[in-house]
Amino acid sequence: MRSVAPYVPGEQPGPGRRAIKLNSNENPYPPSPRVLEAIAREATASVRLYPDPEARALRARAAEVYGVPADHIMAGNGSDELIALLLRATIDPGARVAYPVPTYSYYDTLVAAQGGEAVRVPFPEDFSLPPALAAARARVTFLCNPNSPSGTLVPTRAVEALARALPGILVVDEAYVDFAREHSLGLVGRLANVLVLRTLSKSFSLAGLRVGLAFGHPDLLAGLRAVKDSYNLSRLSQAAGEAALGDLPWMQANLARIKATRARLAQVEQAELALPIDDMVAAAMAAASVEDFRFPVLEYSAVSPTGAPR
Amino acid sequence: MRSVAPYVPGEQPGPGRRAIKLNSNENPYPPSPRVLEAIAREATASVRLYPDPEARALRARAAEVYGVPADHIMAGNGSDELIALLLRATIDPGARVAYPVPTYSYYDTLVAAQGGEAVRVPFPEDFSLPPALAAARARVTFLCNPNSPSGTLVPTRAVEALARALPGILVVDEAYVDFAREHSLGLVGRLANVLVLRTLSKSFSLAGLRVGLAFGHPDLLAGLRAVKDSYNLSRLSQAAGEAALGDLPWMQANLARIKATRARLAQVEQAELALPIDDMVAAAMAAASVEDFRFPVLEYSAVSPTGAPR
Repeated sequence: MRSVAPYVPGEQPGPGRRAIKLNSNENPYPPSPRVLEAIAREATASVRLYPDPEARALRARAAEVYGVPADHIMAGNGSDELIALLLRATIDPGARVAYPVPTYSYYDTLVAAQGGEAVRVPFPEDFSLPPALAAARARVTFLCNPNSPSGTLVPTRAVEALARALPGILVVDEAYVDFAREHSLGLVGRLANVLVLRTLSKSFSLAGLRVGLAFGHPDLLAGLRAVKDSYNLSRLSQAAGEAALGDLPWMQANLARIKATRARLAQVEQAELALPIDDMVAAAMAAASVEDFRFPVLEYSAVSPTGAPR
Repeated sequence: MRSVAPYVPGEQPGPGRRAIKLNSNENPYPPSPRVLEAIAREATASVRLYPDPEARALRARAAEVYGVPADHIMAGNGSDELIALLLRATIDPGARVAYPVPTYSYYDTLVAAQGGEAVRVPFPEDFSLPPALAAARARVTFLCNPNSPSGTLVPTRAVEALARALPGILVVDEAYVDFAREHSLGLVGRLANVLVLRTLSKSFSLAGLRVGLAFGHPDLLAGLRAVKDSYNLSRLSQAAGEAALGDLPWMQANLARIKATRARLAQVEQAELALPIDDMVAAAMAAASVEDFRFPVLEYSAVSPTGAPR
């Protein structure tokens, strides 16, 4: 057995325990009713059949929604699986993987599992791109954008400049991008070394169903497909993801509520909560605490000491 | 990008196309009604929350059903994921992975993806264990038992002797074991180098939901956990798997129907079908063709030329 320090997911409350989890950035609002309808439609005797290994219906819907051709899209068991597939497809022992820190701590785990060398480049105080990132000349560079746990955004023009300066692949992990002003999907058609990741776990309220999407050049995606489990996404997850993408107004309304609560909370309640209020973490916390529970005892810390669990 | 020949999953019929698939060994009968009830119960607003990364309720149910302690059990996104995790945890480039052939062809793909050296040892004509298998002294040895596509079984006493003779880990892939007379779960408590894999895709009619189980020593499972995606199994898949394991009589009744049809078909219809009739592949084929469809055009071959797709 290799010695790899396992990633520790956010603590889970035991069954029947009433607690507000602030450590995994779960959406406080439910997904679109269409999601539950789609699951009910798909939960029939047909679960005896294997799912579509290529998730064609889900990808076709994503192609419509995001204006990216379906052959530039791949579906994964959460964006976590897509990150792991990319590293497996590209990283031999000792190969360099660079990313600015602090950021999503799962990168550390996956790079170690693949035997790669992690090049952790500290963000400057303003969380702009550190010049040392491009200078690391890594085979794969991660940019969580907006970044978790800082909630800061690197503008798309700076992301593009980074992609052009890199000799390897740039992964733009946009797990939280629906909360932001701009995104990098426009780079996918133009730069063959850019892989943009999305998840339906955050803005679409589907963390429990594990649906992630990768957008990139077909040659890049072919490398990921070669190392993926054939049937990586269940029939129900594919149907739920397709339905969620089919109801953008629902997702956007939830985002608007979260942002409004966040703004109110940041002004009024920061002192009382005695917790760091950053853009992203505060979003879920604010909505859950203020609207639904009126400040119960906070049993979980908002940001773990080791980084940013999802 | 590494150069890995991707595994080609069994062909999928297009939407709306009426075809009998014989290439993936899907169960022709639906899962227990309790499975669909469990999915309906779990398909609520709670899908916004992450699943239990340790699948505790599912593992507790498996512990009851199989009489193996829960800390000796791990759940995966199908047994395919568990195979991949084991290889990732143990195989450095050039390390040897041995298995008798012909067998499940996905082993080839996964060993190549990990940069391992596949030692493919031909089965003798009677499909008993080839002595060269233990002599290969591989770090990991696979035994698909019963074997697909041959439908043959290596007796548990021979499996135990193999495990004791090996310097490395023996993976007993029991995807089809519910069709067989005996199994190797009894080895798990006694031999720390044995990993037994089960899937709910075949006998339990849950291929669409991707639920696999690994049984092994906690130290062995800790190695797999260290390289797994945190949230590898969705909330709905965990609930469905738990419900399926809670209704063994339903699964056993389906098995009895498939075996009866297989026996009838093997006697009467082999000449008419002009297809190789083996134990396992014929099972699903027989039931679907004879009982439900009265011999329509067979559009898919029962066994692919490259081995045994699932």
